[in-house]
Amino acid sequence: MNTPASVILPSFTDIEAASQRLEGQTVRTPLLENATLNEQLGGRILLKPETLQRTGSFKFRGAFNRLSLLDEDQRRKGVVAYSSGNHAQGVAAAARILGIECTIIMPKDAPSLKIANTRGYGAEVVLYNRRTESREEIADDLLERSGATLIRPFDDPQIIAGQGTCGREIYQQARDLNASVDAVLVCCGGGGLTSGIALATRNMSPETEVYAVEPKGFEDTARSLAAGTRLENDPLAESICDALLTPSPGEITFTLNQQLLSGGLVVNDEEVRQAMAFAFRNLKLVVEPGGAVCLAALLSGHFDAVGKTVAITLSGGNVDPTFFAEVLAAG
Amino acid sequence: MNTPASVILPSFTDIEAASQRLEGQTVRTPLLENATLNEQLGGRILLKPETLQRTGSFKFRGAFNRLSLLDEDQRRKGVVAYSSGNHAQGVAAAARILGIECTIIMPKDAPSLKIANTRGYGAEVVLYNRRTESREEIADDLLERSGATLIRPFDDPQIIAGQGTCGREIYQQARDLNASVDAVLVCCGGGGLTSGIALATRNMSPETEVYAVEPKGFEDTARSLAAGTRLENDPLAESICDALLTPSPGEITFTLNQQLLSGGLVVNDEEVRQAMAFAFRNLKLVVEPGGAVCLAALLSGHFDAVGKTVAITLSGGNVDPTFFAEVLAAG
Repeated sequence: MNTPASVILPSFTDIEAASQRLEGQTVRTPLLENATLNEQLGGRILLKPETLQRTGSFKFRGAFNRLSLLDEDQRRKGVVAYSSGNHAQGVAAAARILGIECTIIMPKDAPSLKIANTRGYGAEVVLYNRRTESREEIADDLLERSGATLIRPFDDPQIIAGQGTCGREIYQQARDLNASVDAVLVCCGGGGLTSGIALATRNMSPETEVYAVEPKGFEDTARSLAAGTRLENDPLAESICDALLTPSPGEITFTLNQQLLSGGLVVNDEEVRQAMAFAFRNLKLVVEPGGAVCLAALLSGHFDAVGKTVAITLSGGNVDPTFFAEVLAAG
Repeated sequence: MNTPASVILPSFTDIEAASQRLEGQTVRTPLLENATLNEQLGGRILLKPETLQRTGSFKFRGAFNRLSLLDEDQRRKGVVAYSSGNHAQGVAAAARILGIECTIIMPKDAPSLKIANTRGYGAEVVLYNRRTESREEIADDLLERSGATLIRPFDDPQIIAGQGTCGREIYQQARDLNASVDAVLVCCGGGGLTSGIALATRNMSPETEVYAVEPKGFEDTARSLAAGTRLENDPLAESICDALLTPSPGEITFTLNQQLLSGGLVVNDEEVRQAMAFAFRNLKLVVEPGGAVCLAALLSGHFDAVGKTVAITLSGGNVDPTFFAEVLAAG
């Protein structure tokens, strides 16, 4: 796959404009420190818990930014999105606030909490079978009938700009703590949050290294960065990180990440479980598998934080209680 | 029981001095809002998650403040405390930072996470049987042999001043949010956090009503406020709120609370479990039973938040994973 020359990239100005739009709608999530974690790793770790964001993940940022840019006619015709859950909740909540009709196409095996919450935000949910049905076909059909707008989960300049507001906050908050960030680790699926934070980094803290962190089997960004071109994941790969199971990097996100990232890190499911249990035990935060990959990269030593100041995202906390209990029991 | 005229009360100046001492040692825990909670209750709820405090509860505030006031000779002789767990961890962590030897007397049936963490902070832990042994006798014996200082869990002006820094932060942070707090609800065991926050309230936001929230069977503060004198709990009472199982209000804490509180609220164990499950599902915060009583008071309607701005403490998050899983399974 190659990136077409026509791809439209967001700029830092788009992130600043998104911050204005999100004012009063998003939670300005804190930048937290934990003494036990710092001691254990021998560095200073700044945690950005987007678990505490509206809808329980960073996805509300991009969704609200994107939806608030729709014109009157588009708003009347509604929006459609496909998502395993966090983008779904973000779009549904943003649509409700803006009074826009919303249909979300979700896999039947998405965490039931995510499906229930998406419905709770007032969206119509269409379930499909990930193995036998195409979400794109279902979406195309819906879009054709309704004239609605498809809200992509990551490969959209205004979605990336929205997620980038998370990075903007990290550097503002780090400054308030007198911290100079050596590296930032970002939970990476399609790369929307990663490229948004990378863009904020280049403009606000250009010396900071940015790393994408992905689950094993879905390290498409890491491999694509190494290869210099977009590569796909094995369609049979599996991981507990339901929020990060994208087939390949996006066109826009990869174009940005290729310019701005220092590399990609990969963690396995067991390391993710350990990180979730650590977050429960020591941070007192509920973190979903996909939201725990950066913490996993630190705790398992894939990234050496000794003597460094490292900011990490905890990108979401939407996890089913039964699965969470299982992780705690094993931890 | 009557309060002796000689009781020494802390002042707001003590809270301000404590804030200075705690600078750089404590986490300035955020003041969070959650859209789902606000909608459900029809008010504006400001959450103060001391779950994110060093050692997983507010107790580190009072402990560090008290220990940092010991003189050289006292520091050399060490400290002793008894506690079911959160005060234990607070004192142990503060003692380690200040290089003071520390012995903690804990009931054998305290949550194993709390015992393990207290040992993890380097304290010597002496376990006793709550039904057959007296922690006071064990402590007296230890103090006599070592000349160590007993660090009381709540009935000490400098412990109260330390906990009051939590209240000071609430009003500073509420101001930053342009929020005027109508009422503050505080998790109440012996009353250290409650009286400290009440003291901060009188000085920083005198129109704000302060309520103690206690678990059923341990509503000694509520009953004592109503009776105008300190009353004891039934020694056979039981509750899942292990952090709040004190026999009666303290002398100092009750003297303050009698002057400053609007009243006491009482929640039962089932309401606490529901609140813990809500915090997991919607707030993405790990809250222990005793830390969830204020949220329980709101969710169960014991306090009507409609149209009001209400600040509540989530005082701690030190809960065993097996018990937490059980709560989630039922929730």
